Amino acid sequence: MKKTILALVVVAFFNQPAGAADPKQMDENKRVVLDFYEKGLNKKDFAAAAVHLGPRYTQHNPNAADGPEGFRNFLAFLREKFPNSRSEIKRVFADGDYVILHVHAVRSPGERGVAIVDIFKLENGKIVEHWDVAQPVPEKAANANGMF
Amino acid sequence: MKKTILALVVVAFFNQPAGAADPKQMDENKRVVLDFYEKGLNKKDFAAAAVHLGPRYTQHNPNAADGPEGFRNFLAFLREKFPNSRSEIKRVFADGDYVILHVHAVRSPGERGVAIVDIFKLENGKIVEHWDVAQPVPEKAANANGMF
Repeated sequence: MKKTILALVVVAFFNQPAGAADPKQMDENKRVVLDFYEKGLNKKDFAAAAVHLGPRYTQHNPNAADGPEGFRNFLAFLREKFPNSRSEIKRVFADGDYVILHVHAVRSPGERGVAIVDIFKLENGKIVEHWDVAQPVPEKAANANGMF
Repeated sequence: MKKTILALVVVAFFNQPAGAADPKQMDENKRVVLDFYEKGLNKKDFAAAAVHLGPRYTQHNPNAADGPEGFRNFLAFLREKFPNSRSEIKRVFADGDYVILHVHAVRSPGERGVAIVDIFKLENGKIVEHWDVAQPVPEKAANANGMF
């Protein structure tokens, strides 16, 4: 029974609509998300970033209100409290309608910062949904490889 | 100058070796990582999971020692302290040599648990490198969408 469930889950994962796997659209989605991130998180320019948002922006970050307003407020907070914050994108991936970023965010220069993975869902080349996970980079680690 | 650097970064991201984007290999990589995760994190069976490891296992999780031994020790810790822990995979992505999992991990049934994104790099169908980011699911959130 458990194996059947696992098999069904695996099938569901691979059973994406064919159109979602278009390599050209996935490359375009990467460019959209990279520009959204640079204009938003680094330049802190909501209007420039928001051109990439679709008719909805479903927010799963538990610290942000739903919709574009939550993102606007977050950028205003960064601009006021952490004007020199920087998000350095370490890796970018795309699969189907999703773009995934592996990011090192530093709020004040010289801090160890935070490791973040952002997941964006796009529809018709526009960002419509966002999840993320964030973890502070610790002072000491059990290996010498770094978090990135 | 800044635009040139950004352009170079974007080109570098898309400039993956052609072989890395083989859809069949990416599907196979997803299957390998899902089996590794199920055998390892859920069944806590190091030997069954370790068949998917390559000649190295470079560990970036700051709480784990480098190499297969770090993973073996982590599974032993789970087996002893949290035998009923469960990792539920919410999303799986693949791009080039990488597989990315969005996971809800619960150490004891009924807990809110932790949101995790794992990134695995594979070579020749074997796992050779791992990064992750983990964040506790909070009791209250600024939106009603949940972390997944």
